[in-house]
Amino acid sequence: MTVSAAEVYAAAERIRGLVKRTPVVRSDVDGRALFLKCENLQHSGSFKLRGGTNWLQSLDEAALARGVMCFSSGNHAAGVAAAAASAGAKARVVMPKDAPNVKVDNTRSFGAEIIFFDRFTEDREAICRAIAAETGATVIPPFDHALTIAGQGTAALELLEEVPDLDAVIAPIGGGGLLAGTCLVVRDRAPSVRLFGAEPELGNDTWLSLQAGERMQIPPSETIADGLRSPMPGALTFPVLQSHLESIALVSEDQIRAAVRWLTLKVHLVVEPSGAVSVAAALAKLPADVKRVGVIVSGGNMEAAQLAEIVAV
Amino acid sequence: MTVSAAEVYAAAERIRGLVKRTPVVRSDVDGRALFLKCENLQHSGSFKLRGGTNWLQSLDEAALARGVMCFSSGNHAAGVAAAAASAGAKARVVMPKDAPNVKVDNTRSFGAEIIFFDRFTEDREAICRAIAAETGATVIPPFDHALTIAGQGTAALELLEEVPDLDAVIAPIGGGGLLAGTCLVVRDRAPSVRLFGAEPELGNDTWLSLQAGERMQIPPSETIADGLRSPMPGALTFPVLQSHLESIALVSEDQIRAAVRWLTLKVHLVVEPSGAVSVAAALAKLPADVKRVGVIVSGGNMEAAQLAEIVAV
Repeated sequence: MTVSAAEVYAAAERIRGLVKRTPVVRSDVDGRALFLKCENLQHSGSFKLRGGTNWLQSLDEAALARGVMCFSSGNHAAGVAAAAASAGAKARVVMPKDAPNVKVDNTRSFGAEIIFFDRFTEDREAICRAIAAETGATVIPPFDHALTIAGQGTAALELLEEVPDLDAVIAPIGGGGLLAGTCLVVRDRAPSVRLFGAEPELGNDTWLSLQAGERMQIPPSETIADGLRSPMPGALTFPVLQSHLESIALVSEDQIRAAVRWLTLKVHLVVEPSGAVSVAAALAKLPADVKRVGVIVSGGNMEAAQLAEIVAV
Repeated sequence: MTVSAAEVYAAAERIRGLVKRTPVVRSDVDGRALFLKCENLQHSGSFKLRGGTNWLQSLDEAALARGVMCFSSGNHAAGVAAAAASAGAKARVVMPKDAPNVKVDNTRSFGAEIIFFDRFTEDREAICRAIAAETGATVIPPFDHALTIAGQGTAALELLEEVPDLDAVIAPIGGGGLLAGTCLVVRDRAPSVRLFGAEPELGNDTWLSLQAGERMQIPPSETIADGLRSPMPGALTFPVLQSHLESIALVSEDQIRAAVRWLTLKVHLVVEPSGAVSVAAALAKLPADVKRVGVIVSGGNMEAAQLAEIVAV
C-alpha cells in the first residue's frame, strides 16, 4: 500500500464542511515568522478529526450501520468519536480502565461507547479483534493507513492555500500520519518548501529510524508529549518521511514546556505538549535561513492541572 | 463631538496591514453558535492596538516626532506602545509605580518609556499634563474620543465581513469605546442584527446609567475583569450605547471565571477575565432566540498565576 498527494486532495473534498478550516495565527520571533496552523482549535481538539472524518465519509451505508471502533485514550479516540457522530454512526472506543477521567469524558461527550480493559491482565489486540468480529465494526487505524494519512494532510493543504510563500513546514511526529500527509501535499504543491519533523528527545524513534535507514523501535517513552509516545514509525508512514524530510529536530522536555508557556502567555493559544513540540522546534531548532515557517499545531486537549503546573513556573 | 460609522470605515483603511485581521472561531453550545472574534490573538494581546493605530496613523509628521503618551497600566498601554513602534514614534506611558511587573515588562517590550508615579502621593493628571506640556506629546485617550472609538469598531467590521448572517453581536464594556464602535458599524452595515453589551455585576456602571438615562458613576470596582473597572461610561460613548443597545447582560464573578475556564480547556483560547465577560454573557444571558451571536473577545493578557488559579479549580 502506498499513499499520494492525490489522496489528500480527495480527502479534502470528502471532509469539506465536516471539519473546521482552522485559523493560521502568525507570530514573529527573532526575525522568524511562525505561521501556526491551529488544529488545537479544531472540533474535538485536534487534527485527528480529519483522518477520522476521511474514514467515516469513505464507508458505505452497510459499514456505517455496523459502526466504527478504535483503540486510543487520546486525541484519536475523540476524533473518531466526533467523526462518527457527524456521520450518524456508532463509535466504540477501547480504553485502559485507568485512563484519565478527562479523556474518558471527552470521548464520551461525542457519543462514543467506551469499552474498558485492564492493561495489566488483558490483551488489547484480542479485545479489539473480539469486538470487531462480534459487531462487524470497522477499525480506524491511528496513523498507518492511506485514508488516515490523507485526512491528516488536509491541514497542511489549507495552510499552503492561506500562506503560499513559506520557506518550510514542520509538524510533530507520533506514528507519522500527520507529517506523512503533510509531506505529500507540500512536496506536490510547493516543491521548494523545505520539510521538517519535530520529535521529543525522549521519543526519538523516527529520528533514530532515519539515521539507521530502517524502522527502529524504542522502549516506552515518558515524554510529557503523550501523543508522541508511539515507539516506532509506521510501515506506510516511514518511507514517506524518509523520502521527503530534510531533517528531524529533537526538542528537550524543558523546550516543550517553554513552548507551551510561550503559546499560552504570549500568543494566547492553549496547546498540549504534543502540539507544542513543533513550535518548540520552530523557535529554537531550525536552520537560520528559515524565515517563514508553517507550523502544524496538532492539538490542545490537556488537563487543567497540567496546564496550571506548566504555566505557573 | 460625535462619531459615525463612516469614521470606522476610514479607520479600517488607515490601519490596514498594521493590525492583524484576527480569526473568528466558532463554538456551538446548547443550540447557540458563538462566533468568537479573537482579539486575544491580536498583536499586543488586545483590541486596543486598533484605536492606538488609528491615532498614530492620523498624526502628521511633526506630531509623530513629538511622540505620544497615555495613562494606563493595562492593554491600552501595550496597544499604544505597539502602535507607536510601528509608526516609528516614541511612546511614553504613565503607570503607577506598583503596577504588576508583567504589565510593565509587556509595555516596555514594545519600546515604550515608562514613567512611574506614586498613586498615593502624586496626582496622575498633573503628571500627564506636565509631560505633555514639556514634550508636546499627543495624549491618546483610552476610550472617549472618535479616533479611539472608530479604531476599536474595526474588529466588528471584520466580524461582519466574515460572518454576515448573525442574529446578534455582543462586546464587553469598560469605558465603552469598543462597544460604541461596534454599535456604529453593526447598525450601519447590518441593521437587523441585535446589539448587546456585557458588564460584570461588580462593575455595572453602564447598566446603571442605561436605567437612569444618564451617566452614573460607581465606586472603585474589585471585579476580576480588571480592564472593565472604569467607573463611568464616556460622554461620547454613552449616547451611542444608549441609542443602539437592546440591553446589557450582567455576569457574576463566577460566570466570568467559568468562561475563562471553558475557553481555556474546551476552546483552547487564552482569554483574560475582561475578555471572557462577553463570552460569559453569550453562554448564559442572552435571549433564547439568539442562535448565532458574534462575540468580541477583547484580549488575552493575563498573569500566569491568575490563569493557573482559575483553571485549576
